[in-house]
Amino acid sequence: MSNQYLDPNLKVFSLNSNRKLAAEIANVIGVELGKCSVTRFSDGEIQINIEESIRGCDVYVIQSTSSPVNEHLMELLIMIDALKRASAKTINIVMPYYGYARQDRKARAREPITAKLCANLLETAGATRVITLDLHAPQIQGFFDIPIDHLMGVPILSDYFKNKIMDGDIVIVSPDHGGVTRARKMADRLKAPIAIIDKRRPKPNVAEVMNIVGNIDGKIAILIDDIIDTAGTITLAANALVENGASEVYACCTHPVLSGPAIDRIENSTIKELVVTNSITLAEEKKTDKIVELSVAPLIGEAIIRVHEEQSVSTLFD
Amino acid sequence: MSNQYLDPNLKVFSLNSNRKLAAEIANVIGVELGKCSVTRFSDGEIQINIEESIRGCDVYVIQSTSSPVNEHLMELLIMIDALKRASAKTINIVMPYYGYARQDRKARAREPITAKLCANLLETAGATRVITLDLHAPQIQGFFDIPIDHLMGVPILSDYFKNKIMDGDIVIVSPDHGGVTRARKMADRLKAPIAIIDKRRPKPNVAEVMNIVGNIDGKIAILIDDIIDTAGTITLAANALVENGASEVYACCTHPVLSGPAIDRIENSTIKELVVTNSITLAEEKKTDKIVELSVAPLIGEAIIRVHEEQSVSTLFD
Amino acid sequence: MSNQYLDPNLKVFSLNSNRKLAAEIANVIGVELGKCSVTRFSDGEIQINIEESIRGCDVYVIQSTSSPVNEHLMELLIMIDALKRASAKTINIVMPYYGYARQDRKARAREPITAKLCANLLETAGATRVITLDLHAPQIQGFFDIPIDHLMGVPILSDYFKNKIMDGDIVIVSPDHGGVTRARKMADRLKAPIAIIDKRRPKPNVAEVMNIVGNIDGKIAILIDDIIDTAGTITLAANALVENGASEVYACCTHPVLSGPAIDRIENSTIKELVVTNSITLAEEKKTDKIVELSVAPLIGEAIIRVHEEQSVSTLFD
Amino acid sequence: MSNQYLDPNLKVFSLNSNRKLAAEIANVIGVELGKCSVTRFSDGEIQINIEESIRGCDVYVIQSTSSPVNEHLMELLIMIDALKRASAKTINIVMPYYGYARQDRKARAREPITAKLCANLLETAGATRVITLDLHAPQIQGFFDIPIDHLMGVPILSDYFKNKIMDGDIVIVSPDHGGVTRARKMADRLKAPIAIIDKRRPKPNVAEVMNIVGNIDGKIAILIDDIIDTAGTITLAANALVENGASEVYACCTHPVLSGPAIDRIENSTIKELVVTNSITLAEEKKTDKIVELSVAPLIGEAIIRVHEEQSVSTLFD
Amino acid sequence: MSNQYLDPNLKVFSLNSNRKLAAEIANVIGVELGKCSVTRFSDGEIQINIEESIRGCDVYVIQSTSSPVNEHLMELLIMIDALKRASAKTINIVMPYYGYARQDRKARAREPITAKLCANLLETAGATRVITLDLHAPQIQGFFDIPIDHLMGVPILSDYFKNKIMDGDIVIVSPDHGGVTRARKMADRLKAPIAIIDKRRPKPNVAEVMNIVGNIDGKIAILIDDIIDTAGTITLAANALVENGASEVYACCTHPVLSGPAIDRIENSTIKELVVTNSITLAEEKKTDKIVELSVAPLIGEAIIRVHEEQSVSTLFD
Amino acid sequence: MSNQYLDPNLKVFSLNSNRKLAAEIANVIGVELGKCSVTRFSDGEIQINIEESIRGCDVYVIQSTSSPVNEHLMELLIMIDALKRASAKTINIVMPYYGYARQDRKARAREPITAKLCANLLETAGATRVITLDLHAPQIQGFFDIPIDHLMGVPILSDYFKNKIMDGDIVIVSPDHGGVTRARKMADRLKAPIAIIDKRRPKPNVAEVMNIVGNIDGKIAILIDDIIDTAGTITLAANALVENGASEVYACCTHPVLSGPAIDRIENSTIKELVVTNSITLAEEKKTDKIVELSVAPLIGEAIIRVHEEQSVSTLFD
Repeated sequence: MSNQYLDPNLKVFSLNSNRKLAAEIANVIGVELGKCSVTRFSDGEIQINIEESIRGCDVYVIQSTSSPVNEHLMELLIMIDALKRASAKTINIVMPYYGYARQDRKARAREPITAKLCANLLETAGATRVITLDLHAPQIQGFFDIPIDHLMGVPILSDYFKNKIMDGDIVIVSPDHGGVTRARKMADRLKAPIAIIDKRRPKPNVAEVMNIVGNIDGKIAILIDDIIDTAGTITLAANALVENGASEVYACCTHPVLSGPAIDRIENSTIKELVVTNSITLAEEKKTDKIVELSVAPLIGEAIIRVHEEQSVSTLFD
Repeated sequence: MSNQYLDPNLKVFSLNSNRKLAAEIANVIGVELGKCSVTRFSDGEIQINIEESIRGCDVYVIQSTSSPVNEHLMELLIMIDALKRASAKTINIVMPYYGYARQDRKARAREPITAKLCANLLETAGATRVITLDLHAPQIQGFFDIPIDHLMGVPILSDYFKNKIMDGDIVIVSPDHGGVTRARKMADRLKAPIAIIDKRRPKPNVAEVMNIVGNIDGKIAILIDDIIDTAGTITLAANALVENGASEVYACCTHPVLSGPAIDRIENSTIKELVVTNSITLAEEKKTDKIVELSVAPLIGEAIIRVHEEQSVSTLFD
Repeated sequence: MSNQYLDPNLKVFSLNSNRKLAAEIANVIGVELGKCSVTRFSDGEIQINIEESIRGCDVYVIQSTSSPVNEHLMELLIMIDALKRASAKTINIVMPYYGYARQDRKARAREPITAKLCANLLETAGATRVITLDLHAPQIQGFFDIPIDHLMGVPILSDYFKNKIMDGDIVIVSPDHGGVTRARKMADRLKAPIAIIDKRRPKPNVAEVMNIVGNIDGKIAILIDDIIDTAGTITLAANALVENGASEVYACCTHPVLSGPAIDRIENSTIKELVVTNSITLAEEKKTDKIVELSVAPLIGEAIIRVHEEQSVSTLFD
Repeated sequence: MSNQYLDPNLKVFSLNSNRKLAAEIANVIGVELGKCSVTRFSDGEIQINIEESIRGCDVYVIQSTSSPVNEHLMELLIMIDALKRASAKTINIVMPYYGYARQDRKARAREPITAKLCANLLETAGATRVITLDLHAPQIQGFFDIPIDHLMGVPILSDYFKNKIMDGDIVIVSPDHGGVTRARKMADRLKAPIAIIDKRRPKPNVAEVMNIVGNIDGKIAILIDDIIDTAGTITLAANALVENGASEVYACCTHPVLSGPAIDRIENSTIKELVVTNSITLAEEKKTDKIVELSVAPLIGEAIIRVHEEQSVSTLFD
Repeated sequence: MSNQYLDPNLKVFSLNSNRKLAAEIANVIGVELGKCSVTRFSDGEIQINIEESIRGCDVYVIQSTSSPVNEHLMELLIMIDALKRASAKTINIVMPYYGYARQDRKARAREPITAKLCANLLETAGATRVITLDLHAPQIQGFFDIPIDHLMGVPILSDYFKNKIMDGDIVIVSPDHGGVTRARKMADRLKAPIAIIDKRRPKPNVAEVMNIVGNIDGKIAILIDDIIDTAGTITLAANALVENGASEVYACCTHPVLSGPAIDRIENSTIKELVVTNSITLAEEKKTDKIVELSVAPLIGEAIIRVHEEQSVSTLFD
Repeated sequence: MSNQYLDPNLKVFSLNSNRKLAAEIANVIGVELGKCSVTRFSDGEIQINIEESIRGCDVYVIQSTSSPVNEHLMELLIMIDALKRASAKTINIVMPYYGYARQDRKARAREPITAKLCANLLETAGATRVITLDLHAPQIQGFFDIPIDHLMGVPILSDYFKNKIMDGDIVIVSPDHGGVTRARKMADRLKAPIAIIDKRRPKPNVAEVMNIVGNIDGKIAILIDDIIDTAGTITLAANALVENGASEVYACCTHPVLSGPAIDRIENSTIKELVVTNSITLAEEKKTDKIVELSVAPLIGEAIIRVHEEQSVSTLFD
């Protein structure tokens, strides 16, 4: 570590979801990661050993509730319980990816609102602050009554494309109806127009069609989403864009869930490059040539320092 | 009242925001409105007199937190406190319009999330259930930990246009980036395509332009929003649609806030007709020829009966 | 500012109820008022902008819930929510006048206890301390589970009369049955006897009579109350005192609500002078020659300093 | 039992404070008292055995927190815990006397507000309703967020004097500044004037004098208080009344705490008769000829029936 | 189903841990299992669909938090959230096995108390009652503030041995220091003496020895524990018993966790038969000839009926 | 005081249970005990006067809930309320003996779990940390959601016997089935074997017999328990040990409740010496020659210092 953070009361711990990112964040701040093991008993119960005193400390725990989501969430809840009982002064949860965020409302009868449940569980366990990145819906901030610092991934993704030499006009494309505001934000940063994929089913029992609203002809299309999961929507969108005259298609997202058939679909799609962040750890077998990973460690590290030093976090985004 | 509801434990009370709607709802159910006065002391403090025993009853209180929002909200909170202390069995809040819903996230530093605050206040006062209509963001359901029944206004608005004779193809238009999903829902019901108004500022210090994404040429455009407040966005959108070739423009919304210059703007716009519901009471001076008001009383009345009889509310929307 | 308070973590903000008093208090402490705007959207919803970082600060918010009470209360609740989410260290509510304090018990069936509701709302929003003045009932302290510092207005009012040259014996008069203890306290400071106005209705359907219990003959009577609202009781009392032989009548109170006919009644009464504090901002049109306004800024400013420096507040009253 | 209450889900239990009153209440209602023993382990810990199933029942527990107050309060809290864990449907606490009620505000620095603490403890343990009588301050109702039914003792005391043959004019006297409102209420029922004992200390280090405000000369004085504890105030007041010309002095109160020297003082005072209720069990050795005990069992029994049958309790007082 | 339970408001749902047991329980009660699917999205998030209205119903959810414990716990929490939001009247959690029960205290510095965390999470999610079996420590009942019905497995295990023909004297053996009370209970039912395995390390760096406290010579030993996890302790104990003269060794437990090397160890041990209950579903590959499984369905089914009908559950154990 | 603790924000207060121990603890730390009186009003209500400002301080309150348990518990709760309202920064409850700890589960139908109730009451009153010693069940730690530091008495008791010259082999004996783990811990420290008293009733209506499991013949037996209350079990155990061949019997416990016949039984038993700590104040009349009292003041004093200075408390036990 070149720099060294002076206040010994700032402690950063990593659980199992993002160990590499946590190490980068600790390096940005200038601290050693706290000593702590997270293992499993033979029957699968989580065992947490915090191997240094944290009494009176401001503790930051790095953990995305990425897959395996229930394991990662329970690790986090148990860690919070242990920190609370061990007399931590504050327990700050750093969740680069907030799992279950898509279950944020009752869309059908008798559905849970699991994203709210998770917020309640974290508060009940004893969390005193959350730092997170690109929530699926910004309203999830309101699921908490503790302070939440909500960081933005769009600038990181936009900067990548701004610095990339691309030959031709670009258009930012939202792959669905709900993501148009996000596409507009990136478009503003890249001074580009937008288009929308308007997927709909013309009649019952007829296949959905990928209609494109907006002009993409001859343009380089950049699809943007917050989460890419099975990559069905994004790859169909990319193919439709090419079929409808886009010259090239890039895709980007903050959170590369990339579950099930995602990698195959991307490899076999017309997407030229998929740009993601390391909010979710990418398994080695998912790291294909098409995928570019950008680090959120500088952003999160800076946020932790500012929170700890009680400076405004909002100025980070000026 | 032609029909008469038999269970005397179901009581419906109206506060000051929607007295006419409350009377309609009571009529749909087949009950008399509960006796209750809501007045002001000389210094402006609210005085509530509940003039009949509600001990052990399931009470439904009809109140939108429409303008004057703080007065209406405090009436509701004080009523809940009175009902709780008077031993109501359940306190069911019927809010056709949920005020402060647009303050549902921190969009800038140090903003409140007033929509969540209101949810917390209602729960603290003692509400045991909320019945509401077309929340600005469906995630607001998750702001509550008590059950919430979320009714939909789109079917009512869609049915109106389905039954209206309109000569020509129609297109459903979202007036901004965030409303595309809502436009898509109405479009599905009317089997129509969609378009989006893509308002943006080409450069700093240059006026915003109303770009239209999607094909509207020669079509009858129906603009849909959940809330129309000052009517700036919707009237500019309407004018842009006409300039860009729409044959006619209709507009509709669930919640007619219509504050400040709204009525003037609508009157002076290219909007041919504005279709709204009575979730917010329309002041007499706002009732112009362009405005068509649809009643949500049958929908809400039926919901109350189903909630009271413990039948599924979801089947209401089949 | 002649003096300058050194700890930058003490921040004082004013909302809309008492801007002049807040400025005086800030001056007493030696700080600039925090930058913050409290405005209304076109539809009446409150918009709060806190224009400087308060992360980690001890924030004191000056706001009486005086008329318009519901507006002032909601401003306060929304401000607390914003401060909590913006990571204030402590949120100290300074309420020179606590509105709804007279609704502090169920006097009739099915009444709310709005003073308790307000306490619950403030705690739910996130207040961590209350500083207030002359609560209508001191038991309202127990409506809170957060610390509350309860300042006294009687010394300020008493000192005024102590320093005033008055020719003759004085008697302190309680205008009703519930205020005798307060009258006794002032009487002790001025070494005077007390009397009570014993308003009662001899028979049903007969006018109330103002009986005077105690000797006032030939004396200068000083009526004291905590709140003067419509001024009906106090002016009738004053007239009865004169009719029964008092030589002169003064009146005083901590909280000049002075709603409705109050000013007219006072002007037309036998009250020679009405002494009040600025716990409630007096509108310009209410400032008549009979009304003397004393400032509570030195008292509150000193209390804030002592709270912030963790000195005993009780010694303020020695 | 002549009458027999039919609903087996209404259960009445007595703890140790008021076993005789509880038996009377059960008789009024028409039920057997629930089987339950409350004993002490050898080291003084309380042992409660509920000897019949109360699963799903509406349980009413009769217990005043009279002396020994801490024992009686803990019995009550432990009983509530046992009932909650044994799946009672509702847990209704009937406290004819609410102990610690005089510690209802911070009168000096660093005082507890024990009356609020008790309310919090009862709610935490699991009480769902409180029925009580003549709270020292009616604001204590607001210390609870569960429903509280507040019964009045003044009518019972007033009726006694109304039916008593007394030769001469009467005057109702408040023994201190805080009780004038209560005296006024009794005076209204007996159509009598009021007077106040104005105890004060003329100078430091000089004995207090009992000044009388109001006319008592030649009248029969009835002193009324809510609680008579050591009887110092009331007996000094009585003596002062006689010295100042009262023909006879009666005293009454709802809650006969009568601790320490109380009985001696009353016996040796000019009080002719002290009228009390059985809200607190009077030890045999305290039952002197001067003391008349009235029963609150009919009042409380009727209240329990009305609460259980969800009828208005307020009509009890018409 | 031969019998049919009549009250349609009693609904039993099964999640994924114990589907076979749940079917047996439903059969005992006389109801169909509620329609509900619990699946995984592609990324591992849990998706719950409750396919029938449960509004106003008393719902019983059968789920052990057995392995995979975190998945089963999250299924349960999400189900509770869904039921709460779908207006269930009561949400009764039936956990034949309560996972994480062994993390019930801080045995070392900075340990979590995960068993309490789980209790808090269940209450936060909205559970209103827990029915469970043989908690690792009975004090876990106190981790809850909602009612908990704690059923006993020892009678079922004891009855098995009582009905089994065994030739010789028996002795009940506790495999460790903490289980002696449990061994005593079984010994009382079988009228047998007890012994204890006193495992200890004579010196540092020397292997532990299995000392036997009590007389087992020539006797049939029955080892009893609440949980058998990796089976290390129990199989070493069994071998030590044989080496020290026991004629035969049986083992039994309520909760067959049987993780890791458990089955191999048991197969290779001197244990003749291991008797367990179906509180945890035994995977097919674990069902060896040595293992006898007893059903807790009659016990749990009867408990649910009694809870639902508000009869005493305690009489179950007479 | 030889040493003097420098931080004036650390304040130690004693209530009435352990004044002598509190003085010793204060001496160990190097502070004066805080000024505070705890008295009774004439009617038995507790009156607490905190006679110095504690605003912003870390307050440690020393109070065992020993006999009279309800008085001591209420003193503690009222003190916490007073400290909270007087703006203490943290309220740390030091309970050398935690009363009601044996009511830690429902052993029979409709029992309370009073140990949990007490934990809830302490948290509700406002305690922020608990420091305690040898809880009857370590699971009681989980009854709290605030941090709890759990100190151990076994090392103090063991050291006493380690330093005592005793002629012969020793055996550590658990007087009942539940205390074997505790006996094993002491045995490890003294490198001794264990035995257990296996009290049981051979048949109904036959006297219990004290069977001894383990070898005690010719050995010095040391009986260990956490609490000795009426001393029935321990003295019967001692006598049985002698009858079965023990050469001498010592007894020890952390918490000397010693109620009722305890002292007589011990005096008349074969116990040679009873070693206890001062977690409970021993009344003068209980101090017989057989009883040796060890002080826990050094242990608790050191724990308070470490908690206050945010050092690890766990290292205390290395």
